[in-house]
Amino acid sequence: MNVAGTPYRTIRSEPDGTVEIIDQTRLPGSFELRRLCSLTEVAEAISTMRVRGAPLIGVAAAFGVALALRDDASDANLDRARMTLLATRPTAVNLSWALNALIAKVHPVSPSGRFETAFRFAEHLAEQDVATCRAIGEHGAALLAPIAKDLGRPLRIMTHCNAGWLATVDYGTALAPVYLLHESGTPVEVWVSETRPRNQGYLTAWELAHHGIPHRVVVDSACGHLLQRGDADVVIVGTDRTTRNGDVANKIGTYLKALAAREAGVPFYVAAPGSSIDFSLADGRAVPIEERSAKEIVADDAFPVCNPGFDITPAHLVTGLITERGVCTASAAGLAQLFPERAG
Amino acid sequence: MNVAGTPYRTIRSEPDGTVEIIDQTRLPGSFELRRLCSLTEVAEAISTMRVRGAPLIGVAAAFGVALALRDDASDANLDRARMTLLATRPTAVNLSWALNALIAKVHPVSPSGRFETAFRFAEHLAEQDVATCRAIGEHGAALLAPIAKDLGRPLRIMTHCNAGWLATVDYGTALAPVYLLHESGTPVEVWVSETRPRNQGYLTAWELAHHGIPHRVVVDSACGHLLQRGDADVVIVGTDRTTRNGDVANKIGTYLKALAAREAGVPFYVAAPGSSIDFSLADGRAVPIEERSAKEIVADDAFPVCNPGFDITPAHLVTGLITERGVCTASAAGLAQLFPERAG
Repeated sequence: MNVAGTPYRTIRSEPDGTVEIIDQTRLPGSFELRRLCSLTEVAEAISTMRVRGAPLIGVAAAFGVALALRDDASDANLDRARMTLLATRPTAVNLSWALNALIAKVHPVSPSGRFETAFRFAEHLAEQDVATCRAIGEHGAALLAPIAKDLGRPLRIMTHCNAGWLATVDYGTALAPVYLLHESGTPVEVWVSETRPRNQGYLTAWELAHHGIPHRVVVDSACGHLLQRGDADVVIVGTDRTTRNGDVANKIGTYLKALAAREAGVPFYVAAPGSSIDFSLADGRAVPIEERSAKEIVADDAFPVCNPGFDITPAHLVTGLITERGVCTASAAGLAQLFPERAG
Repeated sequence: MNVAGTPYRTIRSEPDGTVEIIDQTRLPGSFELRRLCSLTEVAEAISTMRVRGAPLIGVAAAFGVALALRDDASDANLDRARMTLLATRPTAVNLSWALNALIAKVHPVSPSGRFETAFRFAEHLAEQDVATCRAIGEHGAALLAPIAKDLGRPLRIMTHCNAGWLATVDYGTALAPVYLLHESGTPVEVWVSETRPRNQGYLTAWELAHHGIPHRVVVDSACGHLLQRGDADVVIVGTDRTTRNGDVANKIGTYLKALAAREAGVPFYVAAPGSSIDFSLADGRAVPIEERSAKEIVADDAFPVCNPGFDITPAHLVTGLITERGVCTASAAGLAQLFPERAG
């Protein structure tokens, strides 16, 4: 999507076999590109959230394995790279999804061809992510356009954290429908919640500002009040992992928005690429919740802190899942209908 | 309560007819006292939140009128002082409650005696607030002690914003039961939410740290997750205005905690001094919600912002109101039973 009028992606491969990313720890204050040349640099970029967002860290991890194989293409190093990357962030399932897909592709290849195979496959995963997000955008826009049609004012969409193009390779998940509605001339306005402690809401505001989409930032606590007073027509968020029954793990605070949306009778949608759906887990109780550093909240250990990074929104609070294959109910049956080959 | 072992109050009258406050805009980083000598200084201290918390701003406003009358004790100046102070903060009803009580006392007095009468009455309101908070603490502790008794571990209390002694003259409202339980040897632990955008949660953490009460700070968004996973036994918050039917206006984010508490089957109590109950309003929809400056959220107008300071928790989500006269249901009948002379 555009940055000051120029199209960018969050990650791209370079002809010399390295990778260039937008350093998201510098946004929204400063737009800086950063070159990653090794597994160590990729793992650092993921764990420090220079690249973040479930779909993007999956793609970044794939490039990380490729860079590891350039120096040492042995089975042992392939396994070491996988373990290093898996340890960076525990909650998003896209990471292990991308790693498993890549390793299945690379393992049968002889060591001399592994780097090339892995790098090309990581590029393929990046392109696939763009196509997936674009499809989520189309399905979501088709879902929302009828709601927007008769309002006589802009459609007011509430989101949480950043599930925009910065969280993916391009387009985003939750924001993809917003971009496509805007492009097709449907007026939209977005409520952006700050998303303490890392303030990814400002990434969302930055994205939207660069595309000329009206938006307002609010503190996370304000979302209940806005929904209660009828100021939002729909809530759309992303997901780091959705389990077989439709429970949704996403950024801490998502669950509170889902409760308030239900109370207000406002639909609550989750944009969920297939790569974020974990058919191996029965429900949300099994999702590991990342406990992040106290330093994200207070400096110098000034006060004792608890900092869970994610929460679980139970399926019954989710109006629907917007996937690249269409929209389904947040349920085992709904997911099995769209992903029969994986539901087993 | 104690600051580094020395007992303090948030506001106190000085022998020279001025007022000394703890400047809460400097906390928790720095503990500074500040002398207020005029109506202008008091109004500034309230609107910039050097003094804050519904009960405390009522008492501070009473001192503000007294200071205005020292220079000019005319009816016109009395009225001007009242209007100036009423304009500082719109949501908390304690402010107009204290002003009305003071003016009823002062108006019949001849101008030469008005300053003295007003100053003494403001001192009386301060003492009354201490007694009220102490009584809320006793009723609340009696309510919670049975819950704590059989746990075999500390009672885990969640609160929001600061409804501790810093929000009152002493003891606090929501935290008064916590202090009294702690003093009586019942182990307690407090979940403190940051309370963006002004971070009053750090005032709560500072208070609790100075009293040796175990606590942990979390981002506002984390409270749903904590309640969902069974990490809190009870939620207690304060209120800026509770209407005749038991609807509760309080710091933005309170409503989300009430929704999550109901979902988790956890009792949700509101500590409500009589001065915060507005029998003139039928329900919460009539409460004016203060829209505060965008600068509380983002610097330099970097992004468009919406910053409502309060929200309304409907009575049906409130397990009970803890007042200085005892505990009642959040309903017209419950309030009328405790305050028959005001329910009309």
